[in-house]
Amino acid sequence: MSDEILAGYRQSIDNIDAALVHMLAERFRITQAVGRYKAETGMAPADHDREGHQITRLRTMAIDAGLDPEFSEKFLRFIVEEVIRHHLQIAEDT
Amino acid sequence: MSDEILAGYRQSIDNIDAALVHMLAERFRITQAVGRYKAETGMAPADHDREGHQITRLRTMAIDAGLDPEFSEKFLRFIVEEVIRHHLQIAEDT
Repeated sequence: MSDEILAGYRQSIDNIDAALVHMLAERFRITQAVGRYKAETGMAPADHDREGHQITRLRTMAIDAGLDPEFSEKFLRFIVEEVIRHHLQIAEDT
Repeated sequence: MSDEILAGYRQSIDNIDAALVHMLAERFRITQAVGRYKAETGMAPADHDREGHQITRLRTMAIDAGLDPEFSEKFLRFIVEEVIRHHLQIAEDT
């Protein structure tokens, strides 16, 4: 695609995606540590109260940032689903 | 939850989530602009070649960052699904 306007947009998207991938990598490093800690101390992998607070907080933040709050909730659920999958694996291996 | 170790992890997760939400807000601002541009110039909303390149790039980047490459692909597809939904809306409104 030799369209310069589109190429400029795509460069910005690629830069943002690099940031997102690295933030996600770090987020999962932390949730893996949480998973090990929960398994060691016998806590349940999921915590629905915590999840509820996170959703409320992210929805408010999304509105301020001009992001669809429905999407921010969908996004958190998508991430948490993966985290719980990791936690269950850790609990199995422990 | 009064567990200090867990509280520390959660503070880090909340900080990262704030960064993620703001990066996503900016990413969708750009893809909205792309959507309007594509609609004006009559380009198709989806571009499978571009998507293939993005997936390959993000998988490589994920491996370097210690993120599951399968997850990075699933993540991009999750985002692109939302982007295409926006583009179709823009095309309908144009």
